[in-house]
Amino acid sequence: MDKPTSPFDPSGFRRALGMFATGVTIVTARAGDGAPVGMTANSFNSVSLDPPMVLWSLAKSARSLPVFHAAEHWNVHILANEQNDLANRFARAGEDKFAGLALEPALADAPLLAGCAARFQCRTVFRYEGGDHIIFVGEVIGFDQSEAAPLLYVSGEYALATRLSRPVATDAGATNGGAAPFTEELLGYLLGRAHYQFMWSFQRTLDELGISHGEFFVLSLLAVRSGLDVAEIAAHTAYTGIAADAELLAGMCARGLLAVSNDAVARYALSDSGLAASRQVLAAAHAVEAALVEQLGRREAAGLRNLLKHLIRASDPGLPVLWGAGL
Amino acid sequence: MDKPTSPFDPSGFRRALGMFATGVTIVTARAGDGAPVGMTANSFNSVSLDPPMVLWSLAKSARSLPVFHAAEHWNVHILANEQNDLANRFARAGEDKFAGLALEPALADAPLLAGCAARFQCRTVFRYEGGDHIIFVGEVIGFDQSEAAPLLYVSGEYALATRLSRPVATDAGATNGGAAPFTEELLGYLLGRAHYQFMWSFQRTLDELGISHGEFFVLSLLAVRSGLDVAEIAAHTAYTGIAADAELLAGMCARGLLAVSNDAVARYALSDSGLAASRQVLAAAHAVEAALVEQLGRREAAGLRNLLKHLIRASDPGLPVLWGAGL
Repeated sequence: MDKPTSPFDPSGFRRALGMFATGVTIVTARAGDGAPVGMTANSFNSVSLDPPMVLWSLAKSARSLPVFHAAEHWNVHILANEQNDLANRFARAGEDKFAGLALEPALADAPLLAGCAARFQCRTVFRYEGGDHIIFVGEVIGFDQSEAAPLLYVSGEYALATRLSRPVATDAGATNGGAAPFTEELLGYLLGRAHYQFMWSFQRTLDELGISHGEFFVLSLLAVRSGLDVAEIAAHTAYTGIAADAELLAGMCARGLLAVSNDAVARYALSDSGLAASRQVLAAAHAVEAALVEQLGRREAAGLRNLLKHLIRASDPGLPVLWGAGL
Repeated sequence: MDKPTSPFDPSGFRRALGMFATGVTIVTARAGDGAPVGMTANSFNSVSLDPPMVLWSLAKSARSLPVFHAAEHWNVHILANEQNDLANRFARAGEDKFAGLALEPALADAPLLAGCAARFQCRTVFRYEGGDHIIFVGEVIGFDQSEAAPLLYVSGEYALATRLSRPVATDAGATNGGAAPFTEELLGYLLGRAHYQFMWSFQRTLDELGISHGEFFVLSLLAVRSGLDVAEIAAHTAYTGIAADAELLAGMCARGLLAVSNDAVARYALSDSGLAASRQVLAAAHAVEAALVEQLGRREAAGLRNLLKHLIRASDPGLPVLWGAGL
């Protein structure tokens, strides 16, 4: 074949190919001696609906090529986003990749893995020449899927997919004469609004219990880490901009929410009614969360948690360990 | 070929295939009469690194099949996440898909579109039988890429990809005896912490200007929508849980941040110094944002904005229009 006139950069080619997002699959077959064989591949794609066909490519240099070349059947497993460890295991050579994995009953002899986003059990119909790879085309003789969010591979990294949102209607940015406008694209605005709307949803519970936001943070903190002194409590809650000071703590003690020790430095813990209150608030938060996740969709909720963690790492001012972004 | 023994459900098969995430491409070629032809396809994938080869599949029923069958060259455009309109345009039959599109100089005759995440200019090397589709394998004679986040297609919807995060270290959830634990997976916690850490980052600016959070919200609101009365201002800021009341407004007037009208019902607007202050705060917010996006990565920032909008829609308590999630 003609070579491109311009010098060709293989690593640049790989990077450019990485811009095409894919799912992650594990393709399995069984060797003549009955040994299970499998490897991670993202070169999968659909081909035909009638008859149902899919394809994937395998390097001619792959140690498992003879097995797949001889196999009449192979199974493609589209991995769920919790299965990136499995993807790594089947991407490495050597070791017994199937150790400890429960196989499920299959239509043919190819191993069938569990816990995937979707599975296609296939019978080889074509093997095509593809440069340094062989293209395997199979007829799908059976398939199933779950509701799991699929694992993605983009630009050499595992990723999560979340559907595109329509814009949030606002005429913000219309004015503020020329300066960088205030727009809904400001993360600070979106974070604040999302956070306040979440709080709004269970503010009623706080009101019923007569618990302020500051008291709420103290209850949540002491429910996790008991016996802190006033300085430690202030340090853990300072990032909220709400002062959890001796006066606030004294008020909570007076209302029986906190118990205080007689140490040289007073240490605070939840009283029984404080624990009950913290559980009540937490239960309300979980209820709000469940309702939101229901509306948002499990994939989007998983994606949002994932990104908020990225942001928290990126913006962590160096908080005490409980709230620290850690490493 | 043998038919599967179990009855085969085409729509179920489509749904299962949808669990394999893909990028979105537009493949173009030129007809014998010079007319540009193109269509949206997600059946693209890489095949070979040496020689560099990619493949995609086209339905035998496609009106453009004769053109692609006769074409020696075709270009694959991996779309960026801003190009979903372009994807829709090239997915529809009829109309002049290339109307108004600026084409860029290509190595061969196939049309080359602009603004994509990556592009591969190819020369046909194989056409393979694939059921109701033809599999086109091309040698890549030229390619390029941008830093744009690629558009995804998952489960029949356009999507964004964001890389998986490592967990945020916390021993929260260790205690709180048996009740649903307080964990970093709680959206309320993640939202609050991300929001507070963002605020923390430009709190200094607020302090320098001696502007409280309540005053900050009033400045931001009036910068966008001027001439509101106290009730309207309170309604727009109520969701923050911070009371923007007559007393707060009076204080801002006294400090020359606001101008008040002599209408029967007093209406408030930013004074010149109030506008200057709002711009100063906004500039600080933009600076914090820019630094965060730098650390977070543009794709992750785009994904986070996208998901926060989903959440804001899902949790909107019915706020006035400026802040309303709208439709």
